[in-house]
Amino acid sequence: MAAKKMAIIATKGALDMAYPPLILASTAAALGWEVQVFFTFYGLQLLRKDLSGIAISPLANPAMPMPVPMPVIVSVLPGMQAMATSMMKAKMKKKGVASLTELRDLCQEAEVKFIACQMTVDLFDFEKSDFIDGIEYGGAATFMKFAGESDVCLFI
Amino acid sequence: MAAKKMAIIATKGALDMAYPPLILASTAAALGWEVQVFFTFYGLQLLRKDLSGIAISPLANPAMPMPVPMPVIVSVLPGMQAMATSMMKAKMKKKGVASLTELRDLCQEAEVKFIACQMTVDLFDFEKSDFIDGIEYGGAATFMKFAGESDVCLFI
Amino acid sequence: MAAKKMAIIATKGALDMAYPPLILASTAAALGWEVQVFFTFYGLQLLRKDLSGIAISPLANPAMPMPVPMPVIVSVLPGMQAMATSMMKAKMKKKGVASLTELRDLCQEAEVKFIACQMTVDLFDFEKSDFIDGIEYGGAATFMKFAGESDVCLFI
Repeated sequence: MAAKKMAIIATKGALDMAYPPLILASTAAALGWEVQVFFTFYGLQLLRKDLSGIAISPLANPAMPMPVPMPVIVSVLPGMQAMATSMMKAKMKKKGVASLTELRDLCQEAEVKFIACQMTVDLFDFEKSDFIDGIEYGGAATFMKFAGESDVCLFI
Repeated sequence: MAAKKMAIIATKGALDMAYPPLILASTAAALGWEVQVFFTFYGLQLLRKDLSGIAISPLANPAMPMPVPMPVIVSVLPGMQAMATSMMKAKMKKKGVASLTELRDLCQEAEVKFIACQMTVDLFDFEKSDFIDGIEYGGAATFMKFAGESDVCLFI
Repeated sequence: MAAKKMAIIATKGALDMAYPPLILASTAAALGWEVQVFFTFYGLQLLRKDLSGIAISPLANPAMPMPVPMPVIVSVLPGMQAMATSMMKAKMKKKGVASLTELRDLCQEAEVKFIACQMTVDLFDFEKSDFIDGIEYGGAATFMKFAGESDVCLFI
């Protein structure tokens, strides 16, 4: 039986939505699936060598569980985004959740193919030297061909 | 002919994005499809017994139709999130849109399988007693197996 | 061999997330795929005759590349949403990215089927005269039948 295939379009770059593509890709690869991830729009941030700038915003997300209820107007004060980010990171570390870098390494070791959207790279003036090694550059049309053969295709 | 299968990964917990997984799951179930929903990240909020805390934010969503144009700086004032939430709920009620609780009940009556992501439950320190009955707890790997057999798989 | 099919559920109406459904639909159509897009929730904004009101918010998106780092509290000041929108539009134009209107025309010329979610049209009190010609109105159940036959189905 041929291996299952998963195609992921990763478009978000905030800390919370950075996790799903990397968790799902590494999980599927561990099950022996062939996986390709197309990073476009803010998703390109996940290919940067240094992921320490990936942040989370408590704004506009009333569903985020917070240790204390926080009025929206407090969330816009200077330092609140940094505080939410470091709180979330500390919580994940304490609970044994792998870091984004660890998950990304796991994907690359499991031969998940990472493709950076050339159009977005050009649009946001990214430099190829900003990104990790071992990735490809391509367009939506090429990716669609793989997606059309996939068993699971997700837009994240 | 075997029944179609739909797999949904529900990751959002705000009022507006709480609707799509429950609407799509109940619609597919009504068509005779086999449906599983994996609730992870903020999506776990949708499994709470009490859904009255589900809110909507007018912030960072310039596409939300508002009765009056509202500058961003007004949207951060105390009470604005509560106001947007109650306005949206009143509008839905007036237009005959089912509540989240009604849609969720409909799903469970139609044997949609609800799975809570164990990793997120642990991460956010949720208690099983917070959640409704009749749900399962599991990980991404188990869900991926169902997703790989599905006709439609959505990340919401 | 039958043509591949793609089903897209377009739920977002901000400038950045307005692009993916139109780019992916026009790309797939150019590859000879049969494509249907179901516009629901804020996605309905993309069917308006006049797309000039489509805006982008720098709020709650720490992943947006900005020319200068901007504290969250500055992002809520009057005029900042308009500024981010016009900056993003100028950048896209300079880089030769097609406008939303151009991409939408391209989709319609390539016979991508656009369906407006009747429930959301009623909920938000949209008028049919607000929308472009050549679209259909329907519900989730009808769309699910096409989705169930599709090779790729995306929730955007």
